[in-house]
Amino acid sequence: RTSKIRNQKDSIFTIMGQLAHKYNATDLSQGFPNFETDDYLKELVTKAMKAGHNQYAPMAGVLKLRERIAEKIESLYGRKYNPETEVTVTNGATQAIYSAITAFVQKNDEVIVFKPAYDSYEPTIKLNGGIPVLIQLKGAQFTIDWTEVAKKITSRTRMIIINTPHNPSGTVLSKEDMLQLESLLKNTDIILLSDEVYEHLVFDDNKHHSAAIFSGLAERAIICASFGKTFHNTGWKTGYCVAPSALMKEIRKVHQFAVFCVNHPMQHAYAEYLKDPQHYLQLGSFYQEKRDKFLKLMKSTKFRAKASAGTYFQVMDYSEITNEGDVEFSERLIKEYKLATIPISVFNIDNKDNLQLRFCFAKTDETLEKAAEILNDIK
Amino acid sequence: RTSKIRNQKDSIFTIMGQLAHKYNATDLSQGFPNFETDDYLKELVTKAMKAGHNQYAPMAGVLKLRERIAEKIESLYGRKYNPETEVTVTNGATQAIYSAITAFVQKNDEVIVFKPAYDSYEPTIKLNGGIPVLIQLKGAQFTIDWTEVAKKITSRTRMIIINTPHNPSGTVLSKEDMLQLESLLKNTDIILLSDEVYEHLVFDDNKHHSAAIFSGLAERAIICASFGKTFHNTGWKTGYCVAPSALMKEIRKVHQFAVFCVNHPMQHAYAEYLKDPQHYLQLGSFYQEKRDKFLKLMKSTKFRAKASAGTYFQVMDYSEITNEGDVEFSERLIKEYKLATIPISVFNIDNKDNLQLRFCFAKTDETLEKAAEILNDIK
Ligand SMILES: CSCCC(=O)C(=O)O
Ligand SMILES: CSCCC(=O)C(=O)O
Repeated sequence: RTSKIRNQKDSIFTIMGQLAHKYNATDLSQGFPNFETDDYLKELVTKAMKAGHNQYAPMAGVLKLRERIAEKIESLYGRKYNPETEVTVTNGATQAIYSAITAFVQKNDEVIVFKPAYDSYEPTIKLNGGIPVLIQLKGAQFTIDWTEVAKKITSRTRMIIINTPHNPSGTVLSKEDMLQLESLLKNTDIILLSDEVYEHLVFDDNKHHSAAIFSGLAERAIICASFGKTFHNTGWKTGYCVAPSALMKEIRKVHQFAVFCVNHPMQHAYAEYLKDPQHYLQLGSFYQEKRDKFLKLMKSTKFRAKASAGTYFQVMDYSEITNEGDVEFSERLIKEYKLATIPISVFNIDNKDNLQLRFCFAKTDETLEKAAEILNDIK
Repeated sequence: RTSKIRNQKDSIFTIMGQLAHKYNATDLSQGFPNFETDDYLKELVTKAMKAGHNQYAPMAGVLKLRERIAEKIESLYGRKYNPETEVTVTNGATQAIYSAITAFVQKNDEVIVFKPAYDSYEPTIKLNGGIPVLIQLKGAQFTIDWTEVAKKITSRTRMIIINTPHNPSGTVLSKEDMLQLESLLKNTDIILLSDEVYEHLVFDDNKHHSAAIFSGLAERAIICASFGKTFHNTGWKTGYCVAPSALMKEIRKVHQFAVFCVNHPMQHAYAEYLKDPQHYLQLGSFYQEKRDKFLKLMKSTKFRAKASAGTYFQVMDYSEITNEGDVEFSERLIKEYKLATIPISVFNIDNKDNLQLRFCFAKTDETLEKAAEILNDIK
């Protein structure tokens, strides 16, 4: 009998993480901080365990946490979600994305995916018998050609997936992008899956335009978000999604049998921690400093970049150094120079190679300096 | 467009949990302890957070934990699993079961399920387009009629799911059962999903006969287990599965996109805690005392039972009291008597009603006494 996703390999993050470990490399590959989450937040987990929150959480999540999530969204994006029926806490944003796709995508349904893209979308679509319809983002700015999108929409289009701020490119969709999308989806029954895990990481004059802001989008949108990305604890595996109740009802049917519920003490800790909006509001300036530091350090190298507008990733062009393929070059960087990055081609249609690498700058200054030192040696 | 699992309602555990909460009832419904997990284990989580294990865990789980799991299985059941390729840590046993079914069950594949059964199997099979082939367990002992099973096996049978010790009945499959199954599956390519989450909870002269013991089963078996059930912390959402590497490879393809990985600090804590086998070896006698206490208390009531052989559930017959349906009776027990239980009929084929309720005795002596007091009032 055949495998359901036969050609699926280990994810690039697993491969690069293992190589980085093997060569004891400075690791700017997988998207996680190498500094610590807030001690206070850890104390809140300890407190929640002591208070006895160690048995099953409610299937949809601790209500107090769902209420805080709804309050946060209302204050930032002006849309009210009902915590009872429209918010679900998930085992990380990956599980939210997985459950959303699985709830709605059936055999031969088409799902529009922009490439490069986070590597879970396509296999999850395929696992459900769906057909990923791929659209390449254009140029150095990774922009969306909405005329092309309009052409790709058919009667079989079930879902469209956007991701803003965008991993791996670091671009942020503009208000105009969102309005274009809204008008394209008008009078269709296409579901919008909006991956907004880097919502708080936007820099300079950029603004995050959540799908929650646009009523023509919000009415059909499943919005996914991540506490791991926001609070520097990707290993606590807690995220959430919000959606109108009719959609959420279907998502919970998957959620309840895929995981039943999410880590209980962590949920109580986040609920408490979210009381202070500064805990997420200061994130943009925190990471902007990191980005600036990294870009300044990179000036003396032969890597070229347009400053990232959001996320904690920076794409860099290395064509001044070599025209070696990015997979080979990134492997050589690990093995010879002990520096781990992510090649962009693995996220592109047909693995198109533009001689670009992705660097995660959610690292201590020391690590960023070490990386720059290494990269300065590469001529 | 239609829902993929249209008639799926909230699980009985969610419904009963909410009712119990609403009526402030003594809660013997959902399967979780109302006493605390070991303080030392909580301290180990705090220690792991302090030690900085707060970012993504490896996709398949913390290697040290996988090694301990393999050691445990080898010492108990005499089979070696390779921690690198044959053990995966999951977000609770429910996610292990989900990923195993999703990895292998395709449209129109048949999956044999014994009823009554844990309520996640069937919806997960259906979500994947598979066909649950239901077989009723027989009599007061809930035994398997292997002749009937042989008749139900067809060329389309992809998987057979067993659960021992069995929820909700509390029965334990015998060595003879396992040998019958082994001979039935010989020369087929049917996958065995063995749900052994209550493996350490066996009483009296009963023994747990893991599928890992029987080579003709182990070579085709995915065995699922739960730390939440074993260590009194169902809300920490950590379990695992083991399987031969060719099967595990497919399961990980689902796992990596369904959740990517599992809570990191909790994994470190369990790895440390597992060093002392007493932490799970004493579980059988601990729960046997609970069962004995509960049954003794129930003697003066009109509920009748055959002592549970395993799990922390006790099925009781209430036909001496009324022939009201079990769903109605359990609702009345909550509303009028403030005692929550689980009706068995919801787990049966066509909701067949034998006037039985399931009681979870993983409760403090005080709670068990309170429950008995209430039940004594019902004439
Ligand atoms: C879940 S692993 C992926 C981490 C991440 O978001 C990235 O590196 O792109
Ligand atoms: C995951 S909720 C189910 C708990 C349980 O195992 C039961 O009550 O049967």
